[in-house]
Amino acid sequence: MTERIQNFLASRRHDGPCLVVDLDVVRENYNAFAKALPDTRVFYAVKANPEPKVLKLLADLGSCFDTASVVEIKLALEAGATADRISFGNTIKKERDIATARALGVDLYAVDCKEEVEKIARVAPGARVFARILCDGSGAEWPLSRKFGCVPEMAIDVLEHAHRLGLVAHGVSFHVGSQQRDPAMWDGALASAAMIFHTLADRGIQLAMVNLGGGFPTRYLKEIPGVESYGSAIFNALRKHFGNQLPETIIEPGRGMVGNAGIIRSEVVLISKKSDAEDDARWVYLDIGKFGGLAETMDEAIRYPIKTARDGSAMVPCVLAGPTCDSADVLYEKDPYFLPVSLEIGDLVLIEATGAYTTTYSAVAFNGFPPLETIVI
Amino acid sequence: MTERIQNFLASRRHDGPCLVVDLDVVRENYNAFAKALPDTRVFYAVKANPEPKVLKLLADLGSCFDTASVVEIKLALEAGATADRISFGNTIKKERDIATARALGVDLYAVDCKEEVEKIARVAPGARVFARILCDGSGAEWPLSRKFGCVPEMAIDVLEHAHRLGLVAHGVSFHVGSQQRDPAMWDGALASAAMIFHTLADRGIQLAMVNLGGGFPTRYLKEIPGVESYGSAIFNALRKHFGNQLPETIIEPGRGMVGNAGIIRSEVVLISKKSDAEDDARWVYLDIGKFGGLAETMDEAIRYPIKTARDGSAMVPCVLAGPTCDSADVLYEKDPYFLPVSLEIGDLVLIEATGAYTTTYSAVAFNGFPPLETIVI
Repeated sequence: MTERIQNFLASRRHDGPCLVVDLDVVRENYNAFAKALPDTRVFYAVKANPEPKVLKLLADLGSCFDTASVVEIKLALEAGATADRISFGNTIKKERDIATARALGVDLYAVDCKEEVEKIARVAPGARVFARILCDGSGAEWPLSRKFGCVPEMAIDVLEHAHRLGLVAHGVSFHVGSQQRDPAMWDGALASAAMIFHTLADRGIQLAMVNLGGGFPTRYLKEIPGVESYGSAIFNALRKHFGNQLPETIIEPGRGMVGNAGIIRSEVVLISKKSDAEDDARWVYLDIGKFGGLAETMDEAIRYPIKTARDGSAMVPCVLAGPTCDSADVLYEKDPYFLPVSLEIGDLVLIEATGAYTTTYSAVAFNGFPPLETIVI
Repeated sequence: MTERIQNFLASRRHDGPCLVVDLDVVRENYNAFAKALPDTRVFYAVKANPEPKVLKLLADLGSCFDTASVVEIKLALEAGATADRISFGNTIKKERDIATARALGVDLYAVDCKEEVEKIARVAPGARVFARILCDGSGAEWPLSRKFGCVPEMAIDVLEHAHRLGLVAHGVSFHVGSQQRDPAMWDGALASAAMIFHTLADRGIQLAMVNLGGGFPTRYLKEIPGVESYGSAIFNALRKHFGNQLPETIIEPGRGMVGNAGIIRSEVVLISKKSDAEDDARWVYLDIGKFGGLAETMDEAIRYPIKTARDGSAMVPCVLAGPTCDSADVLYEKDPYFLPVSLEIGDLVLIEATGAYTTTYSAVAFNGFPPLETIVI
């Protein structure tokens, strides 16, 4: 909780949940990444929080942008980034969206199969592509599926195919899993990346870039290593696998850039029990839930710190749920959340570290509740 | 697929996913409910699909409305329903929202604890309340948690508390679980409801109404019993537990009213594999996913029928995923979906039975993708 957010909230009447984002924290985070990885360019993952003021600040600081769609590309351009600072990082793109991106000047595209390479070759001839490889995602708190990327052996073929079709086989990318708490996880992926560099070099194709992806955590309830730990672990892994021929590198922080910059204020709508049994769980219902911005509580994956004005009194285990008429709109139940026994209906609570992956996930009008409001200060 | 939807889609250029809802099907469904349960009033669950044209049709047909929020109450009023045809069915309500509902004329409220009763007594004195009891939800395809309702013994106290505070203890409600495929599930809940009626009658409080809830299924891939099976099972259970003193009854169909009235058209964005291994899964990526309206594929709960122009050619198991840069945006993977081997990038597919619980769930702007567009015809 920053003093600026505290002052802002003190002067604001509560009328539904809101997210407040402190730009000073975003600036600090950007500078921390720049310092920890001085030779690496930062591509902010716009999807984490696409608020125009956040993008403008980062554009002014010199950040580049990792985008998932044409809309995000346009947001980055409007924020002041030039097209050469934008990557179209989604491996799943419609051909007409690639054409639009190209018309907007974007020259850097993610791929994970030959089919995607062929789309790019047709509508963005000569563009640079990087191939995403699969990672196993151990150590990450947000589940990483096999949705993006291919095995390293296939990435070699994909990049060679791109080269033959007149594209620039530019590099390799991977993602170690979001909210990755183990800096050592970059090592294995960099070993695969180096293998791809060497194999393609033997075939006369010189790759230039390794996209180290995102995954940098924000602090929820558990302690996390500092950005500098990630910086040194990554640098050492690069040295180990690439020797003194270090590739150009980029990172794509999203959660690590804005997660701790935002706080959601929410209201306790109801506190009740399901029976009079002594050991029956206490249910606490907030005015925000899984469909109002806290989608990452899915399967109780992300566990947000929650602060109340009554912290310090005895804490009791609670099932925490959202306000909608959907039985799946429960935040924490398998692993109950401890909240003050003195908590009352109408109390305001602060849900910390909610600057990333909240607002844009929120449902457009589920149960008639409006989407999460954001205020950037 | 109705002829009207087919004709409409034939004349429409595809530029992103869209839901088309056929009002003729909604009308048929309403009439089927009215016929199968002739002595039961229908309260359409607005949250299933709050499109104004759907609400207007139902209001004209004489339907009442089950609402989850003040916004939904206003939508029902705007559609032409009078306030006496509206139930505020969410058990989790802010006191100021109850006050607003009351000011709008709403007189029927759901409760599942004394705390909620007290809010209503303060701002809507004299209103009618019904207590929701817990059901176990077996046989339902969409998970039913313990989020709503209390044990029957507690419901007795809740209703007695309401009576003492000057409210009208009006009845009992329950929900047997959404997409409930077993008509016999109403029997157990009605036994509990009858017990509550009898116990309170002994204390001098006459309840009047049983809210049979929703849960009526729509046809996805598996066959479902017809509405008349539900009607007769419910009627028999009412007779069994209430004898010849049948209570007033209401139902709250949502999915059963609009589910099969809508079809989403989507485009295949990419088809690829993760490796060259013969047995490696084929991945099919659509331009709609878990955050674009298909939230009910969460944990692969709801399995939609998907039709393509190539049906009839050999079918192969596919992992089906959405278009966003979120590794959790995978629709069917544990239980792969069979699609034609001849399916190609750019093909259009029809996702059937998507009239309920799709549009309003869709994320406001996740990854820059717009919310699902709806067209009511």
